[in-house]
Amino acid sequence: MAKVAVLGYGTVGSGVVEVLDVNAKEVSESAGEKIEVKYILDLRDFPGDKHETQVVHDINIILDDPEIEVICETMGGIEPAFSFEKSALERGKSVCTSNKELVAKCGPELVELAKKNGASFLFEASVGGGIPLLRTINDSMKHEKIDSITGILNGTTNYILTKMDREGMGFATVLKAAQDKGYAEKNPEADVEGYDACRKIAILSSLMSGKHVNYEDIYTEGISRISIEDFDYARALNMSIKLLGICKRGESGYSSIVSPFLIPNENPLANVNGVFNAVNVHGNMLGDVMFYGKGAGKNATASAVVADVIDIIKHRGRHIDVNLKSEELTLSPKDNTVRQFFVRVQEDVRNQAVEVFGSGIEEVKGENVHGEFAFLTGDLSEKDFWERLRKLDSVKGYLRLY
Amino acid sequence: MAKVAVLGYGTVGSGVVEVLDVNAKEVSESAGEKIEVKYILDLRDFPGDKHETQVVHDINIILDDPEIEVICETMGGIEPAFSFEKSALERGKSVCTSNKELVAKCGPELVELAKKNGASFLFEASVGGGIPLLRTINDSMKHEKIDSITGILNGTTNYILTKMDREGMGFATVLKAAQDKGYAEKNPEADVEGYDACRKIAILSSLMSGKHVNYEDIYTEGISRISIEDFDYARALNMSIKLLGICKRGESGYSSIVSPFLIPNENPLANVNGVFNAVNVHGNMLGDVMFYGKGAGKNATASAVVADVIDIIKHRGRHIDVNLKSEELTLSPKDNTVRQFFVRVQEDVRNQAVEVFGSGIEEVKGENVHGEFAFLTGDLSEKDFWERLRKLDSVKGYLRLY
Repeated sequence: MAKVAVLGYGTVGSGVVEVLDVNAKEVSESAGEKIEVKYILDLRDFPGDKHETQVVHDINIILDDPEIEVICETMGGIEPAFSFEKSALERGKSVCTSNKELVAKCGPELVELAKKNGASFLFEASVGGGIPLLRTINDSMKHEKIDSITGILNGTTNYILTKMDREGMGFATVLKAAQDKGYAEKNPEADVEGYDACRKIAILSSLMSGKHVNYEDIYTEGISRISIEDFDYARALNMSIKLLGICKRGESGYSSIVSPFLIPNENPLANVNGVFNAVNVHGNMLGDVMFYGKGAGKNATASAVVADVIDIIKHRGRHIDVNLKSEELTLSPKDNTVRQFFVRVQEDVRNQAVEVFGSGIEEVKGENVHGEFAFLTGDLSEKDFWERLRKLDSVKGYLRLY
Repeated sequence: MAKVAVLGYGTVGSGVVEVLDVNAKEVSESAGEKIEVKYILDLRDFPGDKHETQVVHDINIILDDPEIEVICETMGGIEPAFSFEKSALERGKSVCTSNKELVAKCGPELVELAKKNGASFLFEASVGGGIPLLRTINDSMKHEKIDSITGILNGTTNYILTKMDREGMGFATVLKAAQDKGYAEKNPEADVEGYDACRKIAILSSLMSGKHVNYEDIYTEGISRISIEDFDYARALNMSIKLLGICKRGESGYSSIVSPFLIPNENPLANVNGVFNAVNVHGNMLGDVMFYGKGAGKNATASAVVADVIDIIKHRGRHIDVNLKSEELTLSPKDNTVRQFFVRVQEDVRNQAVEVFGSGIEEVKGENVHGEFAFLTGDLSEKDFWERLRKLDSVKGYLRLY
């Protein structure tokens, strides 16, 4: 019998308790023994809840109990989560968490601490929600040279983009509807500005490179500037618009970015719609492998946390290696990345645009857009693109091509 | 340093040797030690090959060498593969294989033998080629109650269906072109009649149920009766036609089938095209998770074999559990399965069709098909459907709806 504590009885935390309840038989078969929630840490009380007697308000009750082997931290945010996890690891208790912010910021430190104390620090649920992604990259794909990871890593923005595309409604209208339905937060900045996706691609970039990628170093654009006209052009190009997090290994090192991209419809990522997430991993031998599933949500995310708990119990007394290192990685500068771009300007600066971007550009006509000149550039470095774009008056929009 | 032998220096076997060569650094980091190919068993010699000195013709050289820890069987077929694997396991050597035929037929026996001798029997590459699927189901998802597994499990048939759809060419023409390109075998029966997909869904059904599902018990239909008119109707329905292998857990037990299905385009499986494979697993907590990648091909399949080798070396001296049991599972009879069907009859039996299937049927009009009456039925059991269909003259085709 293994005993665990859940920190934070919110959406994911209550999901963890529920998975351990409902799937108790499968969990114990998988772990080789029963797993019991002994404590739930929360500021609130939960009178009437099935687990009300397990609720405690003092972290030290958990830290001081030698029976507790694993802590599931599902509170989110940096503090007090970091201090709680640090204290647990220092006492040889293992930690698993869905807290991408903390993993992106302090992951290497916590992994090192776990290693030092013969414990483990796992975070499957921090990227791609329920998708069994990190364990697969760390285990089944560790013998591959991974060339690139490309992901739709945020369900809220993917829901918004899908809805804008299908229903021809503007960003603000769809965001409002998503907020009313609870699909988007009251303060939607972390999602729509790409910050959440940035934390996740930072974690994936770190796993891929074996060094620590600081999320603040990753160039990040959100989706708030995407308009329904952009979708009109995308349709004309037989493409979709997706917010992608990308990490690529090139000759000059690793480069990472979060940005909306035009992506051809034959790419399976283009067909990932609604709140779903998907991550494509390209290995040198394996080629493309894509993982698809619910990127958020109570039970899916909780199931990934429980998978970590089971892994820890199965490997009791052994540190599970996760390839999250402290050594900082300097990303290759975004300026050097070469790609195609899509640009929209007002019709009256058509000649100026052709002059600035050259005659090799390819005009794109949107079925319902008028008074504009839109075009695809040839391959340009980001630096070159921006230098040219700044020479143009009346730019109405631009998108990167995947 | 771990030493392995590769049985069969064909496509997959030479791929295994190549992955171990090219990714030697990553392989040894993942396994914790170097992995070396000591022997390659083949009937042929390979003069001039980098590994010609490792080639042997006598299995006993391998079996008698105590240095050999792992055998990679990439020959295919039942014999002599089965005898070789059995002998290896009896001597405590672990086996990994891409041989779906053998796994489907003798998997439980080989797993038991492995267990008895403190060795492991792994077969990641036997289903979904390079996709890290079986390990994920066995490890990361073992605490889920899996409700269903649905897969596009055969790349050749998916290539043919994609080509028929996109280029409006008939089955025979596309098959011929696929054979010329080497995408389909000279004797294409195993692929186009669904036998290959049947072996694979049998393996998945066994893993899902924890009992042995005999592939001969699985109702199997291939794609040779699919016509370009079917694709015309599919487009009208906003659906695709895919050869699916399905295993479902229902109230009356498990049911499995291999058949072409009409599948709505919003389902991500509908957008899996060309030689790619994809498998959707539905867990009670996790919801849908889909895995996508190359279902065949030298290096992708070989990479999955190498992942098994690494797993065995990492867990040296321990049997790795794979949930393939000897106890036979009786599948729920196909007759009881309830679903919608799509039916095409000649125009002149329209009234007869309406009489037999009832007025609740829904007519479907294909853009370029004439002289036919096509319709969707309501929900019917397979038994009921067939009883009704047999009453109709001039049936031109039918499809199941997913």
